[in-house]
Amino acid sequence: MTTEVVKSHLVVAQNASGRNMNVPIYRMKGARPGPTVYIQSSIHGAEVQGNVVIYHLIQRLKNMDICGEIILVPNCNPIGTNIKAGEYTLGRFDPVNGTNWNRGYFYDKGSVETFANTVTPEESIAGIKQRFRQHLTNAINEKLAEPWGLGLAQQLNLKLQQLAVNADYVLDLHNGPVSTRHIYIPEYAKDSAALFNIPHCIFIPNIFAGALDEATFCPWWTLQEHVKSRLDRDVSFDVEAFTLEMGSQEVINFSEGAIDAASIISYLNAKGAFYQCDVKPESMQRIGVNLRDYKTLFTDWGGMVEYLAKPGHAITKGQPLAQILNIDDLDNNNGSKLLNAPCDLIPILHFPSASVLSGTQLYKVFTNYYSIT
Amino acid sequence: MTTEVVKSHLVVAQNASGRNMNVPIYRMKGARPGPTVYIQSSIHGAEVQGNVVIYHLIQRLKNMDICGEIILVPNCNPIGTNIKAGEYTLGRFDPVNGTNWNRGYFYDKGSVETFANTVTPEESIAGIKQRFRQHLTNAINEKLAEPWGLGLAQQLNLKLQQLAVNADYVLDLHNGPVSTRHIYIPEYAKDSAALFNIPHCIFIPNIFAGALDEATFCPWWTLQEHVKSRLDRDVSFDVEAFTLEMGSQEVINFSEGAIDAASIISYLNAKGAFYQCDVKPESMQRIGVNLRDYKTLFTDWGGMVEYLAKPGHAITKGQPLAQILNIDDLDNNNGSKLLNAPCDLIPILHFPSASVLSGTQLYKVFTNYYSIT
Amino acid sequence: MTTEVVKSHLVVAQNASGRNMNVPIYRMKGARPGPTVYIQSSIHGAEVQGNVVIYHLIQRLKNMDICGEIILVPNCNPIGTNIKAGEYTLGRFDPVNGTNWNRGYFYDKGSVETFANTVTPEESIAGIKQRFRQHLTNAINEKLAEPWGLGLAQQLNLKLQQLAVNADYVLDLHNGPVSTRHIYIPEYAKDSAALFNIPHCIFIPNIFAGALDEATFCPWWTLQEHVKSRLDRDVSFDVEAFTLEMGSQEVINFSEGAIDAASIISYLNAKGAFYQCDVKPESMQRIGVNLRDYKTLFTDWGGMVEYLAKPGHAITKGQPLAQILNIDDLDNNNGSKLLNAPCDLIPILHFPSASVLSGTQLYKVFTNYYSIT
Amino acid sequence: MTTEVVKSHLVVAQNASGRNMNVPIYRMKGARPGPTVYIQSSIHGAEVQGNVVIYHLIQRLKNMDICGEIILVPNCNPIGTNIKAGEYTLGRFDPVNGTNWNRGYFYDKGSVETFANTVTPEESIAGIKQRFRQHLTNAINEKLAEPWGLGLAQQLNLKLQQLAVNADYVLDLHNGPVSTRHIYIPEYAKDSAALFNIPHCIFIPNIFAGALDEATFCPWWTLQEHVKSRLDRDVSFDVEAFTLEMGSQEVINFSEGAIDAASIISYLNAKGAFYQCDVKPESMQRIGVNLRDYKTLFTDWGGMVEYLAKPGHAITKGQPLAQILNIDDLDNNNGSKLLNAPCDLIPILHFPSASVLSGTQLYKVFTNYYSIT
Repeated sequence: MTTEVVKSHLVVAQNASGRNMNVPIYRMKGARPGPTVYIQSSIHGAEVQGNVVIYHLIQRLKNMDICGEIILVPNCNPIGTNIKAGEYTLGRFDPVNGTNWNRGYFYDKGSVETFANTVTPEESIAGIKQRFRQHLTNAINEKLAEPWGLGLAQQLNLKLQQLAVNADYVLDLHNGPVSTRHIYIPEYAKDSAALFNIPHCIFIPNIFAGALDEATFCPWWTLQEHVKSRLDRDVSFDVEAFTLEMGSQEVINFSEGAIDAASIISYLNAKGAFYQCDVKPESMQRIGVNLRDYKTLFTDWGGMVEYLAKPGHAITKGQPLAQILNIDDLDNNNGSKLLNAPCDLIPILHFPSASVLSGTQLYKVFTNYYSIT
Repeated sequence: MTTEVVKSHLVVAQNASGRNMNVPIYRMKGARPGPTVYIQSSIHGAEVQGNVVIYHLIQRLKNMDICGEIILVPNCNPIGTNIKAGEYTLGRFDPVNGTNWNRGYFYDKGSVETFANTVTPEESIAGIKQRFRQHLTNAINEKLAEPWGLGLAQQLNLKLQQLAVNADYVLDLHNGPVSTRHIYIPEYAKDSAALFNIPHCIFIPNIFAGALDEATFCPWWTLQEHVKSRLDRDVSFDVEAFTLEMGSQEVINFSEGAIDAASIISYLNAKGAFYQCDVKPESMQRIGVNLRDYKTLFTDWGGMVEYLAKPGHAITKGQPLAQILNIDDLDNNNGSKLLNAPCDLIPILHFPSASVLSGTQLYKVFTNYYSIT
Repeated sequence: MTTEVVKSHLVVAQNASGRNMNVPIYRMKGARPGPTVYIQSSIHGAEVQGNVVIYHLIQRLKNMDICGEIILVPNCNPIGTNIKAGEYTLGRFDPVNGTNWNRGYFYDKGSVETFANTVTPEESIAGIKQRFRQHLTNAINEKLAEPWGLGLAQQLNLKLQQLAVNADYVLDLHNGPVSTRHIYIPEYAKDSAALFNIPHCIFIPNIFAGALDEATFCPWWTLQEHVKSRLDRDVSFDVEAFTLEMGSQEVINFSEGAIDAASIISYLNAKGAFYQCDVKPESMQRIGVNLRDYKTLFTDWGGMVEYLAKPGHAITKGQPLAQILNIDDLDNNNGSKLLNAPCDLIPILHFPSASVLSGTQLYKVFTNYYSIT
Repeated sequence: MTTEVVKSHLVVAQNASGRNMNVPIYRMKGARPGPTVYIQSSIHGAEVQGNVVIYHLIQRLKNMDICGEIILVPNCNPIGTNIKAGEYTLGRFDPVNGTNWNRGYFYDKGSVETFANTVTPEESIAGIKQRFRQHLTNAINEKLAEPWGLGLAQQLNLKLQQLAVNADYVLDLHNGPVSTRHIYIPEYAKDSAALFNIPHCIFIPNIFAGALDEATFCPWWTLQEHVKSRLDRDVSFDVEAFTLEMGSQEVINFSEGAIDAASIISYLNAKGAFYQCDVKPESMQRIGVNLRDYKTLFTDWGGMVEYLAKPGHAITKGQPLAQILNIDDLDNNNGSKLLNAPCDLIPILHFPSASVLSGTQLYKVFTNYYSIT
């Protein structure tokens, strides 16, 4: 059993030389029916490990019996990938205007509510899904056709969203700065936390801030809530979307990528994407946190810092997070000082440079976290 | 009659060397009572003409009879001013994370509404204003004291807002990329358009997007509306705030700065900031537009472009805006093409570089504009 | 009479997505014999006016009777053209390592001297030229084949130099920051100054610093000198190379480009590149300076500056060059000060931003200049 | 026994706000005579570990009996330290013009030769040293007083060189990108390799390329050679200078810094900088290479890469250096390929980002290396 890989390319931008910039699209369609899956990586140009994960996914999926279709888009931001500033990749935002590459996807709450009002008590789930997908597709197309045009990041985002809008499961592969693996999970899909092999899970509410996962699940979640409140009808559409943070940016690692691919196959298998596949989630400790307890610790000082607390390793209140060097006080006792944890926490990621200004996101940490059974 | 200038410095950040970065504050207090005025410039580091305007203002105000107090903060973003990338100043956003330096001011609509509920039918305007100012001050202080800290841009914004929060009139001096002079005016203060000598006026609604002018007027406007709707009481607080765009970024011009300073004195004089001052607004054509008709024309192509339409000069539908060079088609008829105006319009500003990617803000233009009498 | 334009593309680099980046090459070959001409533009990505000049050249050359061949390579640096940092183009150097894009061309003085020793008293000029061209070609090819590889800028430079090495006349089209038109001319080709319509001419010695013009003329100049000193034989190879600075960076202007194209046609016509062409250099004032008198004025202060002296307009010692704003001294007499010309001079270009650090190249100026008759 | 630390600050630049930027200088003078030592760190802004080394040095030196004087300048480039572009520090070159911050020190070979001609057969070493130091000091002062001014990097370099010019031992603390510890040693001071605890030693010839170590030793080396050749007199001035690469950029590590400090104390102790100090170099394997065998492996492709060979670990010809991902070939066998070592080698450092363009310095490696006994 092998599944064919169909490759195509989609133009998403033009550079200042007038040349097209495109993304590769790999489609793998099974012989049997099943869900549609959309997986992209590297919307933030420096977050490259997901490309390796997609590499491994394709190698494995070739020899698997897929139900439905899996669409894979590695390196989905050809602009962001190629903005070097010094040796690193300035890939989180458009260098022209600072726009985050992951904030321009489309979601119009009002439009979803309008649609929700057209749902009848009798309409089948499949019927609602089909109509709603068309509704969302039309809305994205209309947005892209805006007569005065759109910004670069938004054009890119919407063209990718056109590929994702019909998917049942959407995975957006990211990395943190210096980071342990973690995943953003919409609260209504909480049970899926146990289907990935990812130790740190952040549960997020039905709030849209522009990212692909939100742009995917907010419409369905909102639709579900409106149908519930208007018709008192419980509907479930089984559309899920996640942002997976596959470790640290600026590095790729093939052997870790194979493990990440297995984690994703485990999730997809549980969702019916494969025929006769025995890949199961690993038995492992998973820790959850609600988004409001996923805290960012900003500095109120500038200086140089050693990151003592390592991502993924819990520390208790008062233990050191970091040691700060003050180059103007090397002749006295203030040449170095410790920054201690303000409460029990698990550091998930930290800033990737020792040199920080005041107002830097030094650490992002789990507080009030709990074990997921 | 001379007015003393009291200079101080406020620390707003620390750099990676651990050194304080501060802004200069000039305070000029008159002998007579009157309004409080707050004027800052260069929150976007490349927008430097406002610094020259403040230079001229101080020179003139020294010899004027001020009623109340005028606070002037030139070069109010010492980080943004100093980020060179190539020969230009990368001053519109934090180079670490892309945060626009003019989007982190504080406004909490809910908190304003809560306060509005405490206003009684009998409370004097002066009494409301005093209580509300304290309310706003407390809220900003509380925000700044956030135990997990705040990002660099927000820290900077809030420290500046602390200086502005008690002002009756707030002027935030900016520049466009390549730009004619224009001004953003809250709709409720529409009449003030005729008090400045600025030819192009954009009227904006009571919507907060993070900028200083909005953070200043939204609370008062919202308070006024709530008092009206709850108590059916017409109140006017006479707090106004504007973003003035003093021409193009990356350049300063002393003689134009003197003219800009006269324009501001004209406005402040009309608002009672001076005793026996005869500076009046000039008789000139002023053109207005509603924010929704202030359009951004984005490119859907990349290439090199000559900006044919000049900021401030109206063109009609079909006239050329720009000529585009396509370096891959110099052997055929597509080597150059014209981009024409999609409707009658006045270009206000255009992108400052000939080299553009797709999704570039090529022009911002007035459409459906009208003469202000 | 029309001349065909043959277009091809040359891969000069690969980006981080693994995609080829190429430059367009336009070749126009006449029916009659004549010189080979090589013209490129935009090796510095922000210096884009030369692309328009090449556009106009091709339009005109199509209808001219070319003797020999003209090779035109617009936008010859697809990496540099596309590095945005803020709204401008960070195009003068590789953003990874700071390497100037115009410093990696090949010249090996020792190897030229070795070749010079093989020239006999009887060898014809044509014979020497042919052998030397092969020698240079081999050397560039060998350099490009360096087993450990080469840096990006050098790879780009050498691939372009392969196109230029057989040319008799090489024109490298650049721009200054904010600049009047000027040209770099090797001293031995001084007479060619009068063949272009460019008002400011810098005469440079036989010294190699990495640029294309130097890499082109230094070998021939050195060969000529060695043959003279060794054999006491006067030889002239009539190979010339120039760097033309076509005004200011970051802008293109089609009507000025047409004038620039006429200037180049005038030079090429004088060199025999056209049959029955009556384009002659204009009668105009041309001013020359020796390289050692082309001075760079660096700042020893940081601050904001208005450029009072305009490129191309002579001023005398003591006249103001610039007015400096000091935002920390607006309360006293040091808020603004003038910077005066240290001697009689013609400003040729100035820094393109009002914001300067200490050590900034504020102006480049002609001193001890003279009229060229 | 404690030694006092005398702190001062030296202004080395002004930023665009017109504010002074300074470096901290720590001077520790012993009661006994002895050599003068100069140590600086972070001339490249992202190379910060040396600052921690200086922190530890000062802590230890406080309690040691110094002979002579030790001058320590941490964070010696306040501009480079503070240029963020994304989360990293763009610290290797001036962001305005690409100038490497470590290429503007002063050395004039001709001037050294002129001085060498004034040395007589009888002049004492001490006498020559004193005169030559004055000669060098005058030359640097004269250069800094250049009437047309100097570029920012050169101003900074020369002001630091004024501090270093009288030192007998100069240590410039750097970091590589992702790097093992290594040191540049002038060939004439080869024996000092065994005095540091640094495993990888690069022996460099008497060639000046602008760096501080070269600017320090080239004059003395050249002087020594000229005195030898002119007077046939063997002189030794015992002036040594080194560039120490203390691991990877963008990170600081306090415990490694303590080890680095011990290594430096070991060297200085051997040179007589301490009284009754028993710190000795460690017994360890040290590997040497001549500069010509320290190779840079450039890519001739762009793509994403996993660095398989780790800095400091020898590999043999044909073993894999790196694995390359090609995101456009995930459907075939070219999705990933290995890059193998072209010969036996020790990787010393590699590029710090997985994303590389063609022409990237992928690895720097020792070839033809040998054990130092």
